[in-house]
Amino acid sequence: MKISVLTGEQKKYFMKEAILEAKKAELINEVPIGAIVVLDGKIIGRGHNVRELSQDATTHAELLAIKDANRKLGSWRLERAQLFVTLEPCPMCSGAILMSRIDEVFYGAKDPKGGTVDSLMNLLQDNRFNHMSYVESGILENECGQLLTDFFKKLRNRKKKQKKTSISDRSLV
Amino acid sequence: MKISVLTGEQKKYFMKEAILEAKKAELINEVPIGAIVVLDGKIIGRGHNVRELSQDATTHAELLAIKDANRKLGSWRLERAQLFVTLEPCPMCSGAILMSRIDEVFYGAKDPKGGTVDSLMNLLQDNRFNHMSYVESGILENECGQLLTDFFKKLRNRKKKQKKTSISDRSLV
Repeated sequence: MKISVLTGEQKKYFMKEAILEAKKAELINEVPIGAIVVLDGKIIGRGHNVRELSQDATTHAELLAIKDANRKLGSWRLERAQLFVTLEPCPMCSGAILMSRIDEVFYGAKDPKGGTVDSLMNLLQDNRFNHMSYVESGILENECGQLLTDFFKKLRNRKKKQKKTSISDRSLV
Repeated sequence: MKISVLTGEQKKYFMKEAILEAKKAELINEVPIGAIVVLDGKIIGRGHNVRELSQDATTHAELLAIKDANRKLGSWRLERAQLFVTLEPCPMCSGAILMSRIDEVFYGAKDPKGGTVDSLMNLLQDNRFNHMSYVESGILENECGQLLTDFFKKLRNRKKKQKKTSISDRSLV
């Protein structure tokens, strides 16, 4: 069985960088998900979810981090690279990981409704594809998950408040 | 069971447009795969594979056509749209179809080694995801497949020729 080239400390260090990316998304009211790509101990790609701002369905954190790494390296191949992401990847991002041949994937929180690395299936370790990635889950899981829980709680409260305001507006008519 | 909103003639017409995109890829020595996105009978997104030129692992035909459609509409949601692509989508592009909520997908040739709509699995009709797309295969299948067969044949011949030249070069030394 393959063992990651990174130490436990390195994994936490890089996941904190992915969390920093997630916080950039939160600041602009996007679902807080962040990702980075690492090669030889250096961050070569960064990305955070900007789907609402960009109105582009493909602007997930992982996809943007992969594109950034491709641009920095001048190559679509990321064969010796690691990807850190705060949430379990969706099918599109799992696919992008396979297409760019990323070697190792580390994620924080599970996505039971849409994750395709552990939750619904494992696209990254299906030997019928021409690439497979090493996967490790649960890196700073609580911190990664809490970001999402807090975001959706705030969103619900904001919506409730808006509803209340619109009802009281109507009562004035 | 859902039946497509398009007629057989319309499907052929739009697949020919996807084939035109694939031919653009071929002209620049990229694997000839093309895609278009259609809404209300109009083409709102076009894309062809440019992976080698861009050195970006995410620049598959479908992903670029979806991004183009998102840009044209100013929305990441393509809920009433159809996607036409010359080859069965890979996991990344199947995922992008789900993420953009495309309604109907039509493809030409099967990809037995990497296709995730019929060949290896069906990501587009898995009711655990929050979206499913109608799928129809085999639209102008022979023409779509022939483009790829011809491309790889030419590539092999070019490589053989290069090998021969390099051997005769060495014999001159």
